[in-house]
Amino acid sequence: MRIGHDVVLNANEQKVNAILMKYKQLEVNRSRVHNGEPFPPSVNFLVGKPLVEKSKVFQIIKSMPKGAALHLHDTSMVDLHWLVKNVTYRENCYMCTNNKYFVYFKFFPGTPPSNPDCPWKSVKEERLKATNKDEFDNLLYLNMTLITPDPAKAYPNIDAVWTRFLQTFDQVGGLINYAPVFVDYFYEALTEFNQDNVQYLEFRGLLPKVYQLDGTTLGKDWVMKTYHDIFVKFVDEHRHEFSGGKVIYSGLRIVPENDVLSQVKESIRFRQLYPDHFAGYDLVGQEDPGKTLLEYLDALLYPSEQVPPIDLPYFFHAGETDWEGTPTDHNLIDAVLLNTSRIGHGYALDKHPQVMKMVKQRNIAVEVNPISNQVLLLVSDLRNHPAADLVAQDFPIVISSDDPGIWGARGLSYDFYMAFMALAGEDADLRLLKKLAINSIELSAMTQVEKSKASNLWRQKWDAFIQKLLHQFNQSGGSVFG
Amino acid sequence: MRIGHDVVLNANEQKVNAILMKYKQLEVNRSRVHNGEPFPPSVNFLVGKPLVEKSKVFQIIKSMPKGAALHLHDTSMVDLHWLVKNVTYRENCYMCTNNKYFVYFKFFPGTPPSNPDCPWKSVKEERLKATNKDEFDNLLYLNMTLITPDPAKAYPNIDAVWTRFLQTFDQVGGLINYAPVFVDYFYEALTEFNQDNVQYLEFRGLLPKVYQLDGTTLGKDWVMKTYHDIFVKFVDEHRHEFSGGKVIYSGLRIVPENDVLSQVKESIRFRQLYPDHFAGYDLVGQEDPGKTLLEYLDALLYPSEQVPPIDLPYFFHAGETDWEGTPTDHNLIDAVLLNTSRIGHGYALDKHPQVMKMVKQRNIAVEVNPISNQVLLLVSDLRNHPAADLVAQDFPIVISSDDPGIWGARGLSYDFYMAFMALAGEDADLRLLKKLAINSIELSAMTQVEKSKASNLWRQKWDAFIQKLLHQFNQSGGSVFG
Repeated sequence: MRIGHDVVLNANEQKVNAILMKYKQLEVNRSRVHNGEPFPPSVNFLVGKPLVEKSKVFQIIKSMPKGAALHLHDTSMVDLHWLVKNVTYRENCYMCTNNKYFVYFKFFPGTPPSNPDCPWKSVKEERLKATNKDEFDNLLYLNMTLITPDPAKAYPNIDAVWTRFLQTFDQVGGLINYAPVFVDYFYEALTEFNQDNVQYLEFRGLLPKVYQLDGTTLGKDWVMKTYHDIFVKFVDEHRHEFSGGKVIYSGLRIVPENDVLSQVKESIRFRQLYPDHFAGYDLVGQEDPGKTLLEYLDALLYPSEQVPPIDLPYFFHAGETDWEGTPTDHNLIDAVLLNTSRIGHGYALDKHPQVMKMVKQRNIAVEVNPISNQVLLLVSDLRNHPAADLVAQDFPIVISSDDPGIWGARGLSYDFYMAFMALAGEDADLRLLKKLAINSIELSAMTQVEKSKASNLWRQKWDAFIQKLLHQFNQSGGSVFG
Repeated sequence: MRIGHDVVLNANEQKVNAILMKYKQLEVNRSRVHNGEPFPPSVNFLVGKPLVEKSKVFQIIKSMPKGAALHLHDTSMVDLHWLVKNVTYRENCYMCTNNKYFVYFKFFPGTPPSNPDCPWKSVKEERLKATNKDEFDNLLYLNMTLITPDPAKAYPNIDAVWTRFLQTFDQVGGLINYAPVFVDYFYEALTEFNQDNVQYLEFRGLLPKVYQLDGTTLGKDWVMKTYHDIFVKFVDEHRHEFSGGKVIYSGLRIVPENDVLSQVKESIRFRQLYPDHFAGYDLVGQEDPGKTLLEYLDALLYPSEQVPPIDLPYFFHAGETDWEGTPTDHNLIDAVLLNTSRIGHGYALDKHPQVMKMVKQRNIAVEVNPISNQVLLLVSDLRNHPAADLVAQDFPIVISSDDPGIWGARGLSYDFYMAFMALAGEDADLRLLKKLAINSIELSAMTQVEKSKASNLWRQKWDAFIQKLLHQFNQSGGSVFG
């Protein structure tokens, strides 16, 4: 009944599967038997990342074409090392450190304005003053991520980790939302996911105000056009590797209903302007303290109440909570009633058997982001992640990485590893991984024609992956990685 | 669809429900809103117990008749304060402290034998030497429990906490297994559960060797007769409060198959000898490193292979694990195939949709012990306990407390509180609690006649509870607890 039960592996795939499963069982048993090593999915990723990187299963997953990453956010897709090593080295980049030792950034054409609570200093000059450039850069990097040696102490509860999480977006906002960086950042995002063997992505975008050196700002239309142009450029340059992607416009679930209505209307306009690269609308932000979908009901019903009704697909974050029977928890029900195309997280889904039935019947994808749920403290040991039940029952789920940059991940492989090792049993094999990749394309917002094209590209890459792994295995005399 | 959906509350029950729900919502929201207090079920019980005791919901649950506790173990049912304050004050009680500062106990008629690694000293004399008697007693108490100020540090993983857990049984074994104490201990267990408004209990018993002051030991027959006699005596003395209980003989899942066969045969004999107080057979111990049910298959099939087949009910611990697809995890499948009457823990059940179907169809009770699963590190935040899904789907579950003494709990109320607050939504109300109590009687090993009698007694107590709570509420001018 598990996801992948209907996948039939050919002879070569079976050989790769045998290799993969040898390593999987080895790694599970290393932790499972008495006094074993910590099981990487049971350790907070903020400290457990090196354990993952030692895994040979992880190495195989990295080289595997994983299809589509469908749940990402605009300003957290890129490995933050890139911001440090590339962006903060650019001309006119300034930093300031507030009284809690958090660093913020901004570009200014000349002498920065006075900022008494957090005085601006040239990054270039600060770096020169530092005794060790690499150490300076590493401190900048750590300062903009959630990484900390003792997560339980630093983030004692969900509100604490969310406060810090949202702050990191502010810290790097001044870098990413600078027009030249904005363009490069998105290109870098596509590059990193492509390098991680992801063929397609959909991300939530706030369509933020982007500033230029002279202080003027560029609006949503410029942002959408930029996304469109870079998608086109990148696909053009990587025709045999990458299929493209789409933007999901996302409001913050704290704004007044009128703003949501404006955003819904803008979404309708963008969908007409960019039918190939604009997918729909969502609301984002910490769900528990945020406004419910119900509070935005009128605005969200606007498209369907037009004559004739306008089709605006929704991709609602819903049920990203440990609480049950609360207003947040009811978002899950309302998302389905509002005809959502997919559900972001849907962490609480298992507690709603009736919604589960509807999700399965209507083939509504559940976007599962294992590491995000762990780092943001919904669950500590990923073997307790409720999506294990969805995997066991062949639900339409896709694995994504939410905000990989913020917790030191990169691309999609870390989350795929967690799904493979912790959301499915020791006996779940290559068929699960293959089906997750196939699902991700099927459950994307692509048209049938786009899906068919993306699927062909993925299949070529898949066959090449199988060939390459077998070749490596034979070359190495029966041990893939020597 | 949730457990209790079919319960219809009468007018008085509705009033009590309104009071209960007022407090529940108050307590949930105290934690749910930003910067709220820690939610007790999300904190390891070893440090979170005082949070529970502050709860008015907990106070109501304590006074509520809860029916049956069906998953307990022979030597961990009693609040360990009783061992300290009663048993260690008895004549001839000796203690020794090993090189890791753990205290063991034993009774000796005169000068104890030499025990170089852990020299015996009179408890009475040691207590006299202590500067503060209460402090001395409290140190003894803490030493025999899992309680520690920093559980994450003291017990970094499941193996570590299980090692310490099993050690506590050894530490107190010398007290409990002394014949006069053994009798009193069991009487005290019944007393505490009765005081906690539990009407009936079934427990797993190892039927251990019990020693007398002269060094001679008493065997399984004496132990079973003792249980029988005390059940009869206690029920006789508490005819309007308590309905009795049954023993489930339990082997350790590390012994050779031949031992299991002997135990199965003894179980058959005990069931004939004590049809009213002997329920069946089980295997206990840490499941992951232990032997699987499959390894004991021949012994376990013995009763059904006789001509004519002998009916020996099984109550297998199964699926008490975070691992999926491993031999332990398969115990769950084998338990059902071996026709188990109930499943102890069944923590992994959600990951097995086919077994779930069978469990529901055959009405196999799942014995859920929330605090045990938290303290023994299967799950940290009880809102992530997989039984939340079983509650949501009206599965035949019963709530029990496993080994309350070891982690400082008492009776059943702490676990009932966790079930009410964390395994069900904020909106789950008195109907859930009432149905859990009804279920516990229905899913016990009682005969229909016994169930009907126990059910009547429970119902009288339930009505009195409703009356009393309303009376208190009215007396207090609209606030139950002043």
